[in-house]
This record gives sequence, C-alpha cells and structure tokens, in this order.
Amino acid sequence: MAGDMTTFKGKPFDRASLESLMKRRLFYTPAFDIYGGVSGLYDYGPAGCALTNNIVDIWRKHFVLKENMLEVDCTMLTPHEVLKTSGHVDKFADWMCKDPKTGEIFRADHLVEEVLESRLKGNKEARGQKVDVEEEDPKKKKKKVKNIQAIKLDDALVQEIEEVLAKIDNYGGEELGLLMNKYDIKNPATNGELLPPVAFNLMFQTSIGPSSNMPGYLRPETAQGQFLNFQKLLEFNQQQMPFASASIGKSFRNEISPRSGLLRVREFLMAEIEHFVDPEGGKKHSRFDEVKDVELELLNREVQLSGKTTVETTKIGTAVETGLVDNETLGYFLARIQQFLLKIGIDAKKIRFRQHMANEMAHYAADCWDAELLTSFGWIECVGCADRSAYDLTVHMKKTGAPLVVREPRKEPLKVEEWQCDLDKKKFGPKFKKDGKTVEAAIEALSQDLREKLSLDLDKEGKIVIDVPGVGDGKVEVPKELITIEKRTRVENVREYTPNVIEPSFGIGRIFYALCEHLYWTREQDEARGVLSFPPTVAPTKVLIVPLSSHADFKPFVRTLSDGLQELGISTRVDDSGASIGKRYSRNDELGTPLGITIDFQSVKDNTFTLRDRDSTEQVRASLDDITKAISSLVGGKEKWSDVAARLPKFEGQEVD
Amino acid sequence: MAGDMTTFKGKPFDRASLESLMKRRLFYTPAFDIYGGVSGLYDYGPAGCALTNNIVDIWRKHFVLKENMLEVDCTMLTPHEVLKTSGHVDKFADWMCKDPKTGEIFRADHLVEEVLESRLKGNKEARGQKVDVEEEDPKKKKKKVKNIQAIKLDDALVQEIEEVLAKIDNYGGEELGLLMNKYDIKNPATNGELLPPVAFNLMFQTSIGPSSNMPGYLRPETAQGQFLNFQKLLEFNQQQMPFASASIGKSFRNEISPRSGLLRVREFLMAEIEHFVDPEGGKKHSRFDEVKDVELELLNREVQLSGKTTVETTKIGTAVETGLVDNETLGYFLARIQQFLLKIGIDAKKIRFRQHMANEMAHYAADCWDAELLTSFGWIECVGCADRSAYDLTVHMKKTGAPLVVREPRKEPLKVEEWQCDLDKKKFGPKFKKDGKTVEAAIEALSQDLREKLSLDLDKEGKIVIDVPGVGDGKVEVPKELITIEKRTRVENVREYTPNVIEPSFGIGRIFYALCEHLYWTREQDEARGVLSFPPTVAPTKVLIVPLSSHADFKPFVRTLSDGLQELGISTRVDDSGASIGKRYSRNDELGTPLGITIDFQSVKDNTFTLRDRDSTEQVRASLDDITKAISSLVGGKEKWSDVAARLPKFEGQEVD
Repeated sequence: MAGDMTTFKGKPFDRASLESLMKRRLFYTPAFDIYGGVSGLYDYGPAGCALTNNIVDIWRKHFVLKENMLEVDCTMLTPHEVLKTSGHVDKFADWMCKDPKTGEIFRADHLVEEVLESRLKGNKEARGQKVDVEEEDPKKKKKKVKNIQAIKLDDALVQEIEEVLAKIDNYGGEELGLLMNKYDIKNPATNGELLPPVAFNLMFQTSIGPSSNMPGYLRPETAQGQFLNFQKLLEFNQQQMPFASASIGKSFRNEISPRSGLLRVREFLMAEIEHFVDPEGGKKHSRFDEVKDVELELLNREVQLSGKTTVETTKIGTAVETGLVDNETLGYFLARIQQFLLKIGIDAKKIRFRQHMANEMAHYAADCWDAELLTSFGWIECVGCADRSAYDLTVHMKKTGAPLVVREPRKEPLKVEEWQCDLDKKKFGPKFKKDGKTVEAAIEALSQDLREKLSLDLDKEGKIVIDVPGVGDGKVEVPKELITIEKRTRVENVREYTPNVIEPSFGIGRIFYALCEHLYWTREQDEARGVLSFPPTVAPTKVLIVPLSSHADFKPFVRTLSDGLQELGISTRVDDSGASIGKRYSRNDELGTPLGITIDFQSVKDNTFTLRDRDSTEQVRASLDDITKAISSLVGGKEKWSDVAARLPKFEGQEVD
Repeated sequence: MAGDMTTFKGKPFDRASLESLMKRRLFYTPAFDIYGGVSGLYDYGPAGCALTNNIVDIWRKHFVLKENMLEVDCTMLTPHEVLKTSGHVDKFADWMCKDPKTGEIFRADHLVEEVLESRLKGNKEARGQKVDVEEEDPKKKKKKVKNIQAIKLDDALVQEIEEVLAKIDNYGGEELGLLMNKYDIKNPATNGELLPPVAFNLMFQTSIGPSSNMPGYLRPETAQGQFLNFQKLLEFNQQQMPFASASIGKSFRNEISPRSGLLRVREFLMAEIEHFVDPEGGKKHSRFDEVKDVELELLNREVQLSGKTTVETTKIGTAVETGLVDNETLGYFLARIQQFLLKIGIDAKKIRFRQHMANEMAHYAADCWDAELLTSFGWIECVGCADRSAYDLTVHMKKTGAPLVVREPRKEPLKVEEWQCDLDKKKFGPKFKKDGKTVEAAIEALSQDLREKLSLDLDKEGKIVIDVPGVGDGKVEVPKELITIEKRTRVENVREYTPNVIEPSFGIGRIFYALCEHLYWTREQDEARGVLSFPPTVAPTKVLIVPLSSHADFKPFVRTLSDGLQELGISTRVDDSGASIGKRYSRNDELGTPLGITIDFQSVKDNTFTLRDRDSTEQVRASLDDITKAISSLVGGKEKWSDVAARLPKFEGQEVD
C-alpha cells in the first residue's frame, strides 16, 4: 500500500527527499541536535512554526469562533490525585518487554507486528513472489524491516498471522505475551530471549513544590482541565446546554521507543473540543442538517474484526440513520472534521474514518472514530472523535463531591412513587449511641425492593433486621417505635443530569506532517525541484519579494511593498541575494510560498510589478494597487489564482533561471 | 505607595473587587479548584484565553512580523546535560528555610523582607505615626503583613533596616542567613527556630524514556532551545547578521511558596526574543534612529544601591549616548518594549525601567533592565531585557564542539605574525610511537611566547624539552630533525566570532494582570459597576449583540449580524437572555467588550442598528453597512470612537436599565 504512494500529481512519492527538504528548510529539526538529540522530541523552525500557527488559526475560526465554543487554557502540570481519578495512573500505559541481557526495551505490540510482518515477507520471497521492501502495514508506522529471511510458511499459518495482524490493536499485555511465546518472538537484533510484557505508564512524572510531597504529572491530554472546570463553564454559558469548550496546547506522552519522525513524539500540540450534551433525546445536534449530505469514507468495527479494511463511502446522514455512527452529535463532528481537513489542504482521497475496536478504545470511551490520513507510513490517526459518555464528569464528581451536573427546571414536574423511611431521631440516638450514624446510613442505602419487603416485616413483627457491617455481629434490629416505612409520591421540579461528552481531539503535529506529504511534489526542470503547494491561507510565508538585483533603485520599492503588505497582516520575505531569480523562486517553492513579486526596471519606470503563482509559475503584471488587492484576496481565501489570472494582464517574460 | 493606587479615572483602586470580577467572569480561576487547588497554578477561561491570544497576536505583529524575526517552537522537555551546561542545574535556585518542627518552608528573602517591614511598621505605630496596613514594598509583591507589634526601634536601627530592604534583591543565601541571625528572624506564626537557608533548584525534574536513565527538566525559559538552534537559524537567514529569533511558549518554575495570584506562578507563558549581534562595533542597531526620541523612565543601578528609587525621564538616545544604557541594540529594544506595552493599553504613567544590581542579575547576564509595571502589589517586573553577552553560545559550543559562531569574509584580509611549529611527521611516528598524538597536541598548544623561547633553544641546543603530562616522566625531548619553529605571517580571510545576545523576555501572564489593573474602573450608577476598558484591538470579545427581547422577529437580524462579523474575523457574543438591556451591557462591561449592537423594532422596520461605546456609553444609529464598517475600523485600530461618533448620527434613546 505505502509502496503505491503517489503525490497529488500522480508521480511516485519519495519520503526521503521530502524529509530532507523539511529539515533543510527548517520546518522541523531534531531537538537538542548538537547534544546528540533525544528521540521523540522535535523543534519547529520558522517555516514550521508559521505553518502550525496558520493551521491553528484556521482551526480556531472553523470550530471555536464559528460555534462560540468556550476556549480555555489549563495547566499542563497536574497533581496525582486528578489523574488517579481519571484512570490515567492505572490505565494509560503501553506494554513493553525488556531484553535482560542488552537492556534494550521494545514496545510489545510494535515488536510482534514487526516480526510477524517480516515473516510474511520472508514467506513471499521463499515462494518467489515480489516483495516490496518499502511496503509497510497500512495502519501502522514503524521502522523498515530489513532482516527478512526467505522462509516458506504453511498456508494455514500465513492466514493465522494475517488475522493476528488485522487485530493487533486489540490485544492486551497478556495476549501479547502469549503471541510472543507462540510465535517464538525474540530480540530481532540478537535473537535474545525477552522478558514478558509489563505495563509502562506513559505519563511524565514530577513533583510540585519544594517539599516533594505532591507528586504530579505532565498532562497526557488537555481534556481533564476542561472537565474540572465544567461547572464554571456552564455558569459562564448562562446555564445553557449543549455547549462546547475547547483547548489548544501541548500534551506529553513518554513513548517507549518513538520512531517515525513527527508522527510519534513525546511532546505535541493538541487541539481538543469537549462538547457537552444531554444524554437523553438521542444526542441530536441543531446544525446536523447543514452537514447531513457530506460523504465520508467509513471503516467500521465489524469489517476490521473480520480481518478486512474495506471502506464504504457513506453520507453522514445515512450513517447516523442506520446507526453505524451512533448519534447526530458524533456525526456532526465527523463531517466538520473532514471539512476542516479539506480546508487546510489535505487530499480528499487520503482521508478515512475508522471505528475503534472494543479493546482498542481508551478506558474512558464508549465509542470512537478516528480520522486517519494516508501517508507513506500508512494510515495514521490524526483526529480522534470519541464519545466519552459521562465517564469523566462522573468520576470527578464522585471523588470531589463537586456538582458536575446540569440542573434544569422540568417543563412538567416529575412524580416519583417511592418507599421512604422516616426515623425518630430523638429515640434513635439514645438507643444506638456511637453507632447511630452508621445505622442511619445503612437505612438510607436500602434499595426500594428491600424497603417494600421490610415494610411488611415491620407490620408483621413490629421490627426490622438489617445488615450493618461493623456494628455488633453485623445484624441490627430496629423496632417500629424508631422507624416508619411508607410508599409516597415525591415531586421533582428540577431535572439533574450528568452530560455526555463528545470529544474531537486533533493531533496538530500529525496533521502538519500528513499535510506536507499530501502537498509535496517535484517540478521537473533541469533537475527535479521540490514544491510544497500549501493553499495561500495556510502557507508559512505568503509573498516573496524579489528585486531583479541589489541595485539601489529597487530598494524603495522593496520597502513600500513589504511595509504595505505587513500593514495588511500579510507575511512577506525579501530575497535580494545575488542568486538568479529562478534559484530564489526555487528556494521559496520548497518553503511553500504561494506568491512572488518581481521588481524589475519596468517597475522603476511605471510602478507595475509581476505577480507569480507558485504552482503554475504563471505571471501577471499590474499596478501596485491591483497586485496588492489580488494578494489580499488570494491570502484571504476569497479568490483562486485562476480568478486573478483571468482578471489581470498576463506577463510572458521568461523566468530567468 | 500601593495604598495610593488609583484607577486611570483617578479613583481609589480596589484589588478585591477586580479579582472577584476576574474570577466571576472566568478570566482566570485556580487550577484543580474542585480538588482543593494547587498554589501557583491557574487556568484561563474564555475571556482570559481570548485576551491572552490577542496580546500574543499583537506581540507577534509588533516584533516578529515587523522585524522578520525567526520564530521557533522548541520542546519544553530538556535533557539534564543541556541545563547543566547552561548553568541552570547549579545556579537556578532560590533560598529556602525550613521550620524543622512544623515542616513549613519559607522563601528566605521574602521572609526577611516581610519580617523587617513589619518591624518598621510596628515602630511607626509605637511612635504614633500613621500606618497604612495595605502599604507594601513598591518593588515586591507578597502577603499582607498582619501581625504588626507596636515596638519602638532606635533611629539607627530603623535606618539600618531601611538600607537592608533597599538591597534585599542583592543578597545570597549566606548573607540572608546572617541577616536572620542578626535580626532574630523566626517562623512568624509559631516563633519557631528556622534552619539556615539552603538552595532549592526551581526546575521541575522528570525522566525521559522508559529506562529512567535520562533525567530531564521542564525548561525554565524558552531561550536555550533558540541558542541550540543558532547554527541552523543563521543558515536559514542566509548567513546574514544581525538577526533575531523569537519564541512564544510555556515555561516552568517550581516556586517555593507562590502567592500574589497571577504574578508568581509555576507554569507561565513567555514570549522571548534572542537578538544575535556582532560584539564588535558597539552593538549598533540600524533602526535606532526611529526610536531615539522615545522617552523612558529610568531607575539606574547606582540610585538603588544608594537606597533610593528615584527615576529620571530620559530620551533613549541620550541614555545610550551617556552610557547609562550600554548600547543601541539594548536601547532600541527598551523603546520597542515600551511601545508594545502602550499599544496594548498599559498606562504610560505606570511604566518604568529598572536596571539590575550586580548580584541580582541572572548567572548569564552582563547587563539587564526590567520593564516594571506599577500594580497594587507594587512595581512588578513584566519584561526583562538582558544582555547575555556570548555566555550561552560559548558554553554550549565548548561542551558540544558545534560551531556556534559566525564566519564572515573579511573586507581586508587580516595579517597575523606568529611563531609556527612544523613537524616532520614521517620521523615523528617512529620515534614517539603510541605517544605521537599526545606529543603533537602538546606542541600545538604551546603559547606564542614559549614558541619564541623554544626556537632559541632549538638553535642553541639542537633540541627542545617540553612538558607532556602522562608521557614518560612528563618531560619530552624533541630533536631538531623532527621540528622547525619559525616566525611567519598568516593571512586570515575569514573572521570568526561568537555573537552576543540581547534578550527581551516577556512574562505574558504578568502583563495580562497588570493590564487588567490599569484598565479597571467602576461606573457609578445605582450601584458601582466594574468596567474593563480594553482597547478594541485587545478586548476578548469585540461586539455584544443584544436583541431587545427574545421576539422571533429579531432572530434573523442576530444571525445576519453575527455571521457577517464572524466572516470578518470579529468575535461576537449574543445575549438574548431575558435580562434588561442595561444588565446585559453591564455584564459585558465587566468582560471588557468595547462595542454593543442593539436590535430593536426600528431595526426590523428599516435595517438600522444602534452601536454603543462601552467607555462613554454613547450610541450612534446607522445602517448595517455603516455599522459594520465602523466596527471593522475600530477593531482594526484604524479609528477611535470619537471618529465614529463624529461621522455617524448620534442615538439619544435611553439605555434601558
């Protein structure tokens, strides 16, 4: 699959040349490089930083501004207790195996996958079938398998292994250990025996304050901060439901053995939405109509469990109707996620939505669809869209007692028939003394069924006997002088409920990388030259200003142009180096700069300039005013180059190489 | 001093009411509040988040875009070795004292200051002088001293204490310990004896990767990432000097005992610039002329050491000329910092620039001026502007061997006369065998003076004797067959130097808080109502849309207005609650929303709307088109309300309360 990767121009895609370009042009670079680097940590340079900022800016407009979401910025440092409650201390882990001899550590699922895949390839080779050594599993990214041994396998074993691989995300530690025994999986480099998989918590731990008695972690997601502030946000939103909060910020995962560049890193930018919705009434969304005809490529759970990866093109309206996607709110966000991805320039043919299998889901999730983008590493999860149900609000409320609920007046008061116990407190105290509170609590906790039964006992025997562990022999007798049990009607005027949460969660770094793969191609000239075809709205720098030479006559024009565009908030870059115009444009094609202005001798005479389009290399020539207007309109996303080219006079001068 | 704080309207400033407003309107809130909170950690809510984003946006345009700085985004996780080299592991510490009985921990300098100040106040009280219990040291923020005992002190002692306080930032741990002994300073709550001050490193420690053999820290500043990337940034900038990098991101300091709200926190947003400049030629700046007439309030080092805090209004041009501010680049940034602060709405009368005293400076700094803003906590450092000289690049280069230098062709080749040693390598190897490299290195390292002396020995005795520790008895004889020493002229065509760094470093959270204090006032109506007078460019939400009632006729107008403004990137908020128009405006005065549109029955008839100015409560009435244009121009900072009010017809309708 990955071997078939092509650029959007239909030519073979070459990852090495893109990566070299991105490092050379400082989109990103390994962090602490001069100290030898730290795996899984990358710095973004000027081009990468601007590209990220532009993606985030569009995200904020597309989601936060458009839907009046409540943006928050919560701390990354998080005390132990919060993440203990949320379940991350116990469950946010991957499985790792250690080689006791070399000390090497492997991520168990990746190791099993890698070894089994290499055996399948060895089998193919032994059978004389073509093996693409670049080929990689479509769903996972991992290091290229090099040591393939041509060994033929039984047909039955091949099928068995293929089925294991299709479900690889579904195995826990014990199952991975069994697979390692069954298939005799060892350290691929040394063939050394490995210890069984143990859980490794992925959170970075630290200690808050000087007395080291407050352990804490760096947050693994921005979500918890949003949940903890639920009550205040609801208040800020004047008690109106549904509503969404949103947060853009760094999160941290101490990956066991990060590889595959920007796709698996230890510190990353997330943009997360927590949409709070009433669990009753089918989780409808008021704007669902606006998106119901959006078509998505869906890969559902059952298809995967049957060992396949066939997607179906489905209108989101239909997917929700048939129950494939659980509800309108989840469906609404899937469609909006796709619209966002297309807006920033993601290739429509390289998006699919994959449903999580049961064991694969995070501990808090009730259902989850990932927006996956096709890259040379295979299909990569770039946006998760989970239904976290009421999980988080419930556990935090239970732990802290804070009312993380919605209270709304009922239109019709609710009448509840129930068995109520009334105690005669004056007599209760003297009889039970220090145990009074405990007995009282035990009575409070009696179920409705039991209360009904006990009311009969009370009538018949003049007393009831209940279990109160820890008091006397665990059985306590309460005479009828102390208690009455009656069926009564209670009227509820207020409805109280814990909202459910739909969570679209974006990995900005992964989207960033996939976008670069999708928009990269090479222009065939004397030599192949890399181009990154970012839309003008997203491009790091919008306009390159190129004076024909460093001649003094050109300088005031450079100043006027760059000051004028800056005034409009449009980022420019001047290149007045001695290189040829062609070389200078070429450098900025690599940076993805969509527009270029050349200042030539004609400009000095009549104040006209040429404007060049990166993708077509077409040029138009017009006055300062017209050029500025065209740029403004292109960068604002209001016009395309074809519109501008149709309006303004074409310039036929050769691009000087 | 703080007792005299007034709002910009000249009325007494009330911190409690501002803080209550900011928490009520969710500008910020204690993090993990429902878990009891963690001191020094705060979350920003929707209003605070938007305000921060707008401040950062203006910062980016004012500095990064305007001066083509190279923005980078580096990781917060930083391996031990990097921060060991930078000096932070050894020196980035505060002094703390522990009460061995209660386990309480105090920051030593704050404790000394607090206790001595309370004694001065007790003395005043004993002498019958007026004591303002709200009064606080103008330079420091700390908890209000409550337990003042009226005890008279000798005049000499009072003077002594005053001098100690003026220099409090200048003391190290040992000196603080001596002061604690001398003045018998104990735990103020229990009067318990304290242990002597010990250094507490302020970095949060963690461990990177699964094998816990890579200790790391959360960065205490964004600067190190920028220094480590120097070579790549210089290359990106096509080898042109000077240039600046910039970074906006979170940093972390494990404060010993953080108080005073947003002013002393453990996780904070910084915006830092590293301007790399040639140390030769007086660190000129090409744009200094543009700012030389900017007037600053300067408080220099000598004035402070003499125990005073008198500022002098000085043109930055003059300050650089007289040497008070060391060089043009430093001066340029001081002026630009002030321009930025004024642009976002900081009160011009509440800015001063204070020079650091020698011991107060960070371990890397050669000179430093702080932009301090006056708040009710006193004068607070909000921007530091340090000359870090070549410190950081030098230590990292020394440690890693990476060439963190600039190499530029010399206009005139430099001729250097020097003694050069030539070795006969063929004979050298066989004679010294395995020690050959060591002996060679020892010869390489010989000083010019020694070479001159040895050349005489060689002539006279036919051999030289040099020190080579570790080879034989540490003395090595080299006969003249193996070496010649001659004076020759070497021509250097390339100049190599380590740039100096000027670093303006902005604490965005502190600026945020000071801004709110500077722009807060209360409108006297039936009851005093808080207003935050943010400029439209900075305000969290720009426009409040208020339909007269929830009448269905108004709904399409609400939609048209909010969609239209959103399209222009202008953030709006609709309030169609049942509250009175006056109440709804009042709520948004607290949020600092500068503009309000009312939709009334007239709007339904003729598509005109009223536009209200928050500060004056004046209103104009005009068509949709005119209103939109006015808003756009106000929010873009192109017009002021007075311009709009002069253009558009005044609306005299009463504000319905």
